[in-house]
Amino acid sequence: MPDLILRQDTDHIARLTLNSPANYNALSAEMIAALTDALADVAGDQDIRVVVLAASGKAFCAGHDLRQMQAARDGADGGAAGFADLFETCARMMQMIPALPQPVIAEVQGIATAAGCQLVASCDMAVAAETARFGVNGVNIGLFCSTPMVALTRAIPPKAAFEMLVTGEFIDAARAQHLGLVSRVVPPEDLTGTAMQMAATIAAKLPAAIRLGKRAFHEQLRLGLAEAYVSAGAAMCQNILLPDTAEGMAAFLDKRPPSWA
Amino acid sequence: MPDLILRQDTDHIARLTLNSPANYNALSAEMIAALTDALADVAGDQDIRVVVLAASGKAFCAGHDLRQMQAARDGADGGAAGFADLFETCARMMQMIPALPQPVIAEVQGIATAAGCQLVASCDMAVAAETARFGVNGVNIGLFCSTPMVALTRAIPPKAAFEMLVTGEFIDAARAQHLGLVSRVVPPEDLTGTAMQMAATIAAKLPAAIRLGKRAFHEQLRLGLAEAYVSAGAAMCQNILLPDTAEGMAAFLDKRPPSWA
Amino acid sequence: MPDLILRQDTDHIARLTLNSPANYNALSAEMIAALTDALADVAGDQDIRVVVLAASGKAFCAGHDLRQMQAARDGADGGAAGFADLFETCARMMQMIPALPQPVIAEVQGIATAAGCQLVASCDMAVAAETARFGVNGVNIGLFCSTPMVALTRAIPPKAAFEMLVTGEFIDAARAQHLGLVSRVVPPEDLTGTAMQMAATIAAKLPAAIRLGKRAFHEQLRLGLAEAYVSAGAAMCQNILLPDTAEGMAAFLDKRPPSWA
Repeated sequence: MPDLILRQDTDHIARLTLNSPANYNALSAEMIAALTDALADVAGDQDIRVVVLAASGKAFCAGHDLRQMQAARDGADGGAAGFADLFETCARMMQMIPALPQPVIAEVQGIATAAGCQLVASCDMAVAAETARFGVNGVNIGLFCSTPMVALTRAIPPKAAFEMLVTGEFIDAARAQHLGLVSRVVPPEDLTGTAMQMAATIAAKLPAAIRLGKRAFHEQLRLGLAEAYVSAGAAMCQNILLPDTAEGMAAFLDKRPPSWA
Repeated sequence: MPDLILRQDTDHIARLTLNSPANYNALSAEMIAALTDALADVAGDQDIRVVVLAASGKAFCAGHDLRQMQAARDGADGGAAGFADLFETCARMMQMIPALPQPVIAEVQGIATAAGCQLVASCDMAVAAETARFGVNGVNIGLFCSTPMVALTRAIPPKAAFEMLVTGEFIDAARAQHLGLVSRVVPPEDLTGTAMQMAATIAAKLPAAIRLGKRAFHEQLRLGLAEAYVSAGAAMCQNILLPDTAEGMAAFLDKRPPSWA
Repeated sequence: MPDLILRQDTDHIARLTLNSPANYNALSAEMIAALTDALADVAGDQDIRVVVLAASGKAFCAGHDLRQMQAARDGADGGAAGFADLFETCARMMQMIPALPQPVIAEVQGIATAAGCQLVASCDMAVAAETARFGVNGVNIGLFCSTPMVALTRAIPPKAAFEMLVTGEFIDAARAQHLGLVSRVVPPEDLTGTAMQMAATIAAKLPAAIRLGKRAFHEQLRLGLAEAYVSAGAAMCQNILLPDTAEGMAAFLDKRPPSWA
């Protein structure tokens, strides 16, 4: 049986690929576990500076594994305990992405639906092929995408999110870009190149500054203005006292490239 | 005297129409009371799955009834108690819309100004005629649109909202769509058809899933990420254990339409 | 030595100009102090109804004064106390802008980078020349723009802000407008005219209504819906009881211009 997540490291970039194309990379219990493990490994890897989350096959990710979920209804509780565990485990995995020390870029082709759309929304950034489509369409089968909604409503404006959730309709890549769900839309043949180039740009920055910055970003996001400035000011002070930052500033003033440790 | 709010039910859709075209459907005390009653009736009506909020005549809604408000200044307190009651009653009505069990679609033609623009912003979704215009222009007569601002700043980006509030200038339908205030803009002759078609799409979903989902949407919207996932996870568990949802998932896997109760 | 901030008052508009073009209007300790003083003066000036924040020379503002900051590393603590003070003083100045009684319009030409971009984001509104560019590019020299991020993430969608912060890449004026960082983009030769015209529009409103409204705007912005309505409702009541507002409403109903005190 092939690995559910492939990992390929190049130049401080970890490329994680959902690798279950036969079921459109469904987030089965096994896939969630594999992605959780992969993210945990990356989190502890000091050599990795940025992550690209890609997918094999025609689709990015079609959400939860419905067949597996239906089978779980056989228990005495109708599956209640199992479903609660599944949604909690999945939500914990999704929250690992903003909590990861490294920025994460989603690289999206084909469809990203339900928890697959949530996965895109949970990433720090996303790029998409022109042919990609996004939906939170669980409502079409009677299961409103409540957990995907958490990530989606934090990425795009509320009325647009609401409409996607209640109509179950897809949006195309251009509209996803307009709404802020993805930042770059390119021809399919340029997708991987674009994501990897963006990753290389980030990997070339001072890693400690990126790590400090990503943590500070999420810490301040929902605070009031004064509290946010206290939080971000502490990050700024910590950052500027790094010897590599002193060198970076000196190099800029000297009009030469920095010589970082 | 004709009814201030018309209600027409078709196929689980309640179409509520503001029906005071002579004063551009102004939100007089009577109109607020009538709309409050109509929303309360819909809230308790298990047969209704979605609401379209439309308006008679050339305008959607021109905001509060200025003539009525000026008359209220005659009291010993200069109208203070009456104004406080009016704004509180109006704000309570506006908050009934997100609290309603059913999704609400605004169908906007002509102008939507001040509390009329607030009404659009308070709806879960909105569609507009190409000729519609939106403004929070109380500032032009010395009355800053502070309560409309509450709904507006929760629907569109802050700098755009601020500018509308202090300049009193209208925005057209295209800009309202760009900002996220409305999601679809169509020729005037297609307006009702578009709104009703969107309503029909939603009415065809499993009603219990839509109700659970709308409540979950608003509950999680302003929470931190972890708390939001706890809230939405509970909704997800409740939803998936519904017998109709089990049927919906089974039908999808069997490639047949669901047979819902 | 010329003044770091120029102030020119015309028709109730205070035009403040960053005036250190040789170093792209860098926010040195002296510039922060001068802008703090200028804002404090304006705050106390009952004659001023709106502020335009402009800049001399080719750039709007290039952020902090790196040369001055590098010199501060010489102390026994490596500059720690000085940096903490600098970032706190700067954050306090930035927060004076939303707290100012009068609306503030940024008028942006050339580049607005790092704390310069933060300055644009901190203003209530912004207009830009077509040739303007915006970046939070401290990351390029190893200093993540954590404090600029506070203002930026409150003005534009999160994924777009994150990408600017970690890639250090500029966005042009059109994208800044799309994201909501600026509301109007015009040819360079029309920039000042556009900003001053917008200021004149605001200065023609009832000053007390604008002041009440701006305060109410920021008070309600991050509250829950019910609390926001309580806050905004109080502002509405205070506003409508102003004699000038009674006159404004009467004049509107009489179809004549208001006669304000």
